Amino acid sequence: MFSIDRLISEMKKKKSAICLGLDPFIDKIPSKFIEEGEFYFGKTISAYSYAVLQFNKKVLEICKDKVAVVKPQFSLYVRLGIEGLLTFKNTVQYAKELGLLVIIDAKSNDIDSSMEGYADGFLGSVKIEEEEFSAFDADFLTINPYLGSDTYKSIKKVIDTNEKGAFVLAKTSNPSSKDFQDKLIDGKPLYWHVAKSVEDYFKDYKTEFGYLPVGLVVGATMPQELKILKEEFNKLFFLIPGYGTQGGTIDSLSQIVNENIGFIVNASRSILYSYKDKYKDLSFETAILKSIDEMNDQINKVVKY
Amino acid sequence: MFSIDRLISEMKKKKSAICLGLDPFIDKIPSKFIEEGEFYFGKTISAYSYAVLQFNKKVLEICKDKVAVVKPQFSLYVRLGIEGLLTFKNTVQYAKELGLLVIIDAKSNDIDSSMEGYADGFLGSVKIEEEEFSAFDADFLTINPYLGSDTYKSIKKVIDTNEKGAFVLAKTSNPSSKDFQDKLIDGKPLYWHVAKSVEDYFKDYKTEFGYLPVGLVVGATMPQELKILKEEFNKLFFLIPGYGTQGGTIDSLSQIVNENIGFIVNASRSILYSYKDKYKDLSFETAILKSIDEMNDQINKVVKY
Repeated sequence: MFSIDRLISEMKKKKSAICLGLDPFIDKIPSKFIEEGEFYFGKTISAYSYAVLQFNKKVLEICKDKVAVVKPQFSLYVRLGIEGLLTFKNTVQYAKELGLLVIIDAKSNDIDSSMEGYADGFLGSVKIEEEEFSAFDADFLTINPYLGSDTYKSIKKVIDTNEKGAFVLAKTSNPSSKDFQDKLIDGKPLYWHVAKSVEDYFKDYKTEFGYLPVGLVVGATMPQELKILKEEFNKLFFLIPGYGTQGGTIDSLSQIVNENIGFIVNASRSILYSYKDKYKDLSFETAILKSIDEMNDQINKVVKY
Repeated sequence: MFSIDRLISEMKKKKSAICLGLDPFIDKIPSKFIEEGEFYFGKTISAYSYAVLQFNKKVLEICKDKVAVVKPQFSLYVRLGIEGLLTFKNTVQYAKELGLLVIIDAKSNDIDSSMEGYADGFLGSVKIEEEEFSAFDADFLTINPYLGSDTYKSIKKVIDTNEKGAFVLAKTSNPSSKDFQDKLIDGKPLYWHVAKSVEDYFKDYKTEFGYLPVGLVVGATMPQELKILKEEFNKLFFLIPGYGTQGGTIDSLSQIVNENIGFIVNASRSILYSYKDKYKDLSFETAILKSIDEMNDQINKVVKY
């Protein structure tokens, strides 16, 4: 079963269109995890990587029945070096054990055998001397399209062998996404050409819910772009970042809803660290739970499952 | 001293404009390393990651006086999972110990705190509870510009704190680089706009040899583009992939040479694995040495140090 179909099934089952971003910031995670890490490992990078893993595990346990999919931000684990990457691996694995789908947000891009490295490592497996090794085994990977369709080739290969999926950056949620993505080429913005290239490249896949195995990343901060793309590329599933902290609202989402569940909305800091601001009187566990419930309620006003 | 100045100093000292790509392929590395790995660890991913590290170390020892800089391809280590990433880290560290500069080829891209994760992790350091932790501590990182100048911000920060550098993908060496990079925007191709954005963003840095701390990636397979960009953006240093295996030739390079050493040319498989084809009668060590010497001789016909 394609990752995209498994995702939609889980969304229907859990009545949730949230993608929970797992973005670790050492100065924001509850101090008890930091103290525990330092108790075991002293003031070392192992201590803080351990603390992140324990926090992530707790978060995953709290949210496992409330969201369908989580998205660890690769770069924030790279920052902690090899110890952080071990935490990354263990986080992905624990999420899968709890029945959650996993999007690795690494915005990967390369060509030929180098792109295959990402596809095999993050999503697929590698065969060496007749043995099969699977490194991270996530369900989806985010992809940057700047190198063109050569980037998609290895993703197609890993879809063909194990039915995984990807999300290609089209129109991102940051202010300078306008620098290149909005520029007109033959009368259409670059992000439109990217969307078109994804649809063209993967158009022949038949899935259970009708969405292609590779979708798009389109920011919630861009309601106009979101609406136009969603109407024109209705076989592409959208991963929508920028909701909450970055300023995206429910209004931007309400414009793109149709009969199907065609998107997930990412939130990270506004949920994980709500005990630091919005719910500073609550325990971090209760604050996370309350924030997820609220976000589900809010999005579910406009989504039909 | 800026990484770009250290690079040019080393190039002058060693009379070399090669960037040696460290691209591990398990089926290509000499069998003695594989056998040694399997002896210690059985048919495990640890065995093959160990084999790659031993091979890389040997390669680095052979080339340390013949090239100024090496470029491990991140994705090919991701493919081997956490064990591969440990080999990646140890490879970077060993190269630095031998006095070589290191470009991490991860084509990283993200925004805000997420981009900072890559900048801190690959190039800089992270401060936690008054302690400073450095993860990979390389000299340069390759960067994908699709998200716009927000991507450059964290790189600027790491240049300001520790004088590292980066190379931004402009015109890549692969066939589908034409999909988006060649498209005309206001009469100029997208890759030109990318080059312009890099020059504009980093223009205020004063370096010893006059090149900005952030340069461009431009493929050797595109002699025309290479020439035009090099003439117009003469303060940007070029990392040029695609020489040898991918079809770039000395003619493409001879067109862009001026008074200064303004570029490095990457080669990987054509050197590392030359014992498998061009020099199949030689030991892998001798074949590597011979291939490096030949490539240096060839490029040095057109370069003035």
